[in-house]
Amino acid sequence: MRGYKKPTASIIGASGYSGAELTKILLRHPSVKLEKLYAHTQAGKKARDIYPALDTDAVFESYRGAQDTDIYFLALPHGEAFSIVPQLADAGKLVIDLSGDFRLKNPKEHLKYYRKDKDAKAVLTYAMPELYHDAIKQVKAVSNPGCYATSIILGAAPFVKRPLKGAAVKNVNCTAVSGISGAGRTGKVELSFSEMSGNVRAYKAGMHQHTPEILQALDTDTIKPAFGFMFTPMIAPLVRGIYAVLNIQLEKQLPVSQIREHFSAFYRSAPFVRVRETMPEVQHVAYTNFCDIHIAESADNGLVVVVTAIDNLVKGAAGQAVQNMNIMLGYDETHGLL
Amino acid sequence: MRGYKKPTASIIGASGYSGAELTKILLRHPSVKLEKLYAHTQAGKKARDIYPALDTDAVFESYRGAQDTDIYFLALPHGEAFSIVPQLADAGKLVIDLSGDFRLKNPKEHLKYYRKDKDAKAVLTYAMPELYHDAIKQVKAVSNPGCYATSIILGAAPFVKRPLKGAAVKNVNCTAVSGISGAGRTGKVELSFSEMSGNVRAYKAGMHQHTPEILQALDTDTIKPAFGFMFTPMIAPLVRGIYAVLNIQLEKQLPVSQIREHFSAFYRSAPFVRVRETMPEVQHVAYTNFCDIHIAESADNGLVVVVTAIDNLVKGAAGQAVQNMNIMLGYDETHGLL
Amino acid sequence: MRGYKKPTASIIGASGYSGAELTKILLRHPSVKLEKLYAHTQAGKKARDIYPALDTDAVFESYRGAQDTDIYFLALPHGEAFSIVPQLADAGKLVIDLSGDFRLKNPKEHLKYYRKDKDAKAVLTYAMPELYHDAIKQVKAVSNPGCYATSIILGAAPFVKRPLKGAAVKNVNCTAVSGISGAGRTGKVELSFSEMSGNVRAYKAGMHQHTPEILQALDTDTIKPAFGFMFTPMIAPLVRGIYAVLNIQLEKQLPVSQIREHFSAFYRSAPFVRVRETMPEVQHVAYTNFCDIHIAESADNGLVVVVTAIDNLVKGAAGQAVQNMNIMLGYDETHGLL
Amino acid sequence: MRGYKKPTASIIGASGYSGAELTKILLRHPSVKLEKLYAHTQAGKKARDIYPALDTDAVFESYRGAQDTDIYFLALPHGEAFSIVPQLADAGKLVIDLSGDFRLKNPKEHLKYYRKDKDAKAVLTYAMPELYHDAIKQVKAVSNPGCYATSIILGAAPFVKRPLKGAAVKNVNCTAVSGISGAGRTGKVELSFSEMSGNVRAYKAGMHQHTPEILQALDTDTIKPAFGFMFTPMIAPLVRGIYAVLNIQLEKQLPVSQIREHFSAFYRSAPFVRVRETMPEVQHVAYTNFCDIHIAESADNGLVVVVTAIDNLVKGAAGQAVQNMNIMLGYDETHGLL
Repeated sequence: MRGYKKPTASIIGASGYSGAELTKILLRHPSVKLEKLYAHTQAGKKARDIYPALDTDAVFESYRGAQDTDIYFLALPHGEAFSIVPQLADAGKLVIDLSGDFRLKNPKEHLKYYRKDKDAKAVLTYAMPELYHDAIKQVKAVSNPGCYATSIILGAAPFVKRPLKGAAVKNVNCTAVSGISGAGRTGKVELSFSEMSGNVRAYKAGMHQHTPEILQALDTDTIKPAFGFMFTPMIAPLVRGIYAVLNIQLEKQLPVSQIREHFSAFYRSAPFVRVRETMPEVQHVAYTNFCDIHIAESADNGLVVVVTAIDNLVKGAAGQAVQNMNIMLGYDETHGLL
Repeated sequence: MRGYKKPTASIIGASGYSGAELTKILLRHPSVKLEKLYAHTQAGKKARDIYPALDTDAVFESYRGAQDTDIYFLALPHGEAFSIVPQLADAGKLVIDLSGDFRLKNPKEHLKYYRKDKDAKAVLTYAMPELYHDAIKQVKAVSNPGCYATSIILGAAPFVKRPLKGAAVKNVNCTAVSGISGAGRTGKVELSFSEMSGNVRAYKAGMHQHTPEILQALDTDTIKPAFGFMFTPMIAPLVRGIYAVLNIQLEKQLPVSQIREHFSAFYRSAPFVRVRETMPEVQHVAYTNFCDIHIAESADNGLVVVVTAIDNLVKGAAGQAVQNMNIMLGYDETHGLL
Repeated sequence: MRGYKKPTASIIGASGYSGAELTKILLRHPSVKLEKLYAHTQAGKKARDIYPALDTDAVFESYRGAQDTDIYFLALPHGEAFSIVPQLADAGKLVIDLSGDFRLKNPKEHLKYYRKDKDAKAVLTYAMPELYHDAIKQVKAVSNPGCYATSIILGAAPFVKRPLKGAAVKNVNCTAVSGISGAGRTGKVELSFSEMSGNVRAYKAGMHQHTPEILQALDTDTIKPAFGFMFTPMIAPLVRGIYAVLNIQLEKQLPVSQIREHFSAFYRSAPFVRVRETMPEVQHVAYTNFCDIHIAESADNGLVVVVTAIDNLVKGAAGQAVQNMNIMLGYDETHGLL
Repeated sequence: MRGYKKPTASIIGASGYSGAELTKILLRHPSVKLEKLYAHTQAGKKARDIYPALDTDAVFESYRGAQDTDIYFLALPHGEAFSIVPQLADAGKLVIDLSGDFRLKNPKEHLKYYRKDKDAKAVLTYAMPELYHDAIKQVKAVSNPGCYATSIILGAAPFVKRPLKGAAVKNVNCTAVSGISGAGRTGKVELSFSEMSGNVRAYKAGMHQHTPEILQALDTDTIKPAFGFMFTPMIAPLVRGIYAVLNIQLEKQLPVSQIREHFSAFYRSAPFVRVRETMPEVQHVAYTNFCDIHIAESADNGLVVVVTAIDNLVKGAAGQAVQNMNIMLGYDETHGLL
């Protein structure tokens, strides 16, 4: 990009953990200039006062409709992006929304899982680069996937999107451990250090709001899916990371080696997916945009255990958002992310 | 027991975490006198030098066949109890073995999972009080269940042991998070604080040695089980606790309320099992002998999510061992454990 | 106490961490019957709903002046005990107050550190058993020491209370690390797991409210102390424990061995103080009422490094309170605490 | 540097935590090309097999004297750099040694603290850029400071190097908490997660090997220092970071504001030192090359409390090493480090 003016970027909702991670990545990105940090609850404070590790003199501002940069990342609580995204899109801005507002095609599902009405037209390209690279390239506004959704979709997609002969998917049952930063920068008693140290707690079994976006991305009806689906999330005493164990029931047993090859082929052109021969660990992907995948076991009855690991704030949020921006801007997908 | 001499007890393998937990519980037990702590690797050291929180002046000794106390707890590495238990049993001692040596009826399974041959006769009553209370009462030597096994068997047994009409079990797929103390008091790089802080790591998916004892306790063949079974263990950054999520596929859907009542009825006389209406947490059971169970979800296709939590060192090891001792001695099951 | 009616006890402020720890200890205490748990913010809830590890069916109630038990523990926020203690004392109850309300003799100091006025008569015996055993035995109402204060006073008292010849104390400068439970059961962002994992943070250097009670217990004026005093507290990512490093400047160097003997002699009849020859660790005292002390170093210039460790919720709060109750009731000091 | 060949670099001792951190930083550095990773215990393994978060295909090799790159970083255990550094220096290479081998001028001190003899000539420029920037610029081989030493020297230097009138330093007594990564990538029982979770442990009070390098850098004799000095290190349950509390006794009291201005002036041209008005936290500096410093308190008797925080693996090791390399190569000091 030497000799050209760098595109400029803003973050709306910059004071949460995803916003701070976006700030960190964009400050280091060689081909984008981060200009504005919007965060109404922290307006007037220096970004550095809340995140002293960030190397910036920026001051948080309230967002009031400004459209003076080229790119907008929205890292707002669910429901707050509905009114902002259309205006930015109409103004021809590049928009990457990290909330759940524009993910679901079916407003009934949105109502069920987010408990909020939404317009049926409020849908953007679901920007998971490993599945929808070409579509992302052609649009100017996208919806960035959820963190759990990323870890689960990437672990199941090769079976669903490019099924192996005679091995259709019958059930996908997932258990995933998340780092506590997934709950946001918040002061709830049950998320305090004293309560969560030494603790593990599941929640929303079968009812987590990432369920419908996972099914939608796996090309099945979200209310009557073509295969059984159950997702149980839980939190454990770590800050970053999602570790997902998928029990996938196929119609027949396939050898682990064949599945591994299938996954490797499926993700051949996905620079951030690593199909590994050993068990993933959260620390292998923490602070990176990688998703590690391992085919852990294949049983007589066709059950396959797939294990995936990501950093919820990077591949599960800010990193994937920048990956999408790279694609939309025609940069190399990994630019500024390694 | 007032007026009678308290029975005396020894621990063989007292310097590991289960041994230390046994020591702590027995020192506080009102009706047993802990006399000897055997630990050959630490022989000559004071117990307090290794576990300063323990209130005892005892010195670790090497076990050389002594039979001078009434009760023997063995908390040895797998394979080391084979030669000791029969001698103690022959001498009429009360024996509670915490290893896997005497759990499996099928020597082939033992060979497969423990990689060691064993005699087909080396089997003791599988001492899970919630299932085999009467049998435990009638014997003088028992095999204490494994930690993961305890958390999984208790979550599945009501469906298998007392099936609900039309709702036979088709599959049991479990993911369980263990505290790192489950790996023992050991100096492996991959279990160091620097490697495990912020980390999660699965291991032995489908191949963990507790698999056959779970199936055996659930009354099915361990090589060709009557229902599909998959178990994926993992460790996360906590010291104590097992948190198990069981995805149990029944032949038809049952309402959560019916399952909960069924579980409550099944465990009516089990003082340490708490069928709860809210999600279990490790901290709810840490440092206790409780097993908390929650029926988290029941889906259209008959899938039920059961979540259980125990302290791996207490209900998963030392506490359950003392619970068994209480039963064998005719004490109240909870004596010294609340 | 067999044959006699057990004295009955209540806890006012039972839903915080100190209250829960008191509940746990008193439920196991062989010679006291815990009857009432008062906690106005949680009134109506079962104790077990908030602390499922507790083995009790008790329901939290609002305290409205009841005086139906023999003993009252007050574990209230600072300022809330002022009006309750006198009424209970007048009614002849045994009262152990865990707040700072009745600790300081000098109302000016109270105003300075607690920012609240207090009556000069609102002072109770400072119930540190290792220093004031006889006084505690003779009164019916006491003020239980603060957690940091306990760890620091016990590390300095032998030099101040029974000075070694020619080795008067010139300065006591302390740094202490506390577990996060010391901040109470609270939902502040800065105490969330995500903020405190991997973090250390000092606070209130030279201004912590335990400063004047430490000086008062060390027999010096709290405004113009006879020796320099500086205390810097900090929190680190652990739940329980206080670990204090005291740099004590004496007028001349004494050999470590002499100091150790002096400490051992000083604490000869203190069953919970262990003068140890190796470095204390928090895990050595966690979940116990012990205070471990080690004389770590003695330098040419007379500087001595003393390191102490306690569990802030046990020896630093609930355990010490029960130790005081034991003394006041004429029981063995360690009764129900080992 | 565009149009010029980038200088090439090697790391000898690349498989430890400092080596891995160096690898991460150098892979991202825009003006240096990392070519070789030497690590004899891991020779033959891919760097990615041990540190999967690293984005490199490099394979660890045994170092056998090769001199084919321009720059050499040595991150070896103490004692192993003695024989390598002189050869590289003679060959005109740029050498940055992270061990303690070349830090101390006085061989007696080296013998006392490292228990190894050394040649009186084995001394390199002590490469703390905030104190010795010009000297570092003029040499080709330097000794990188220790992690504790960095945090303590930076907190005391303004008082010693540029004393305030009438306020000479009488004593410097420090307590510092270190993350466990400071002990290296090792499998010791006492550093296991199970032993260190919830734990704090001091060690080597007054005897830590960074003591003499701190005194030497503060321009005083290391055996008979001009002021009292005591340093007590401890580890707590975090991976990264050093948090140092310095109790500095001056001859008279100075107001906090004056000291803060003095520090700000002293570090005016030090881009990585931040003299802050609020209390430092480890998370403010983790994964950065910053050293945060706060003047926390100043007491009547002249005692000043200074608190500093760094990341032990970055400013305390790899980051400072790259900062030194930048200076030696004539780059901007912060190049590749923000």
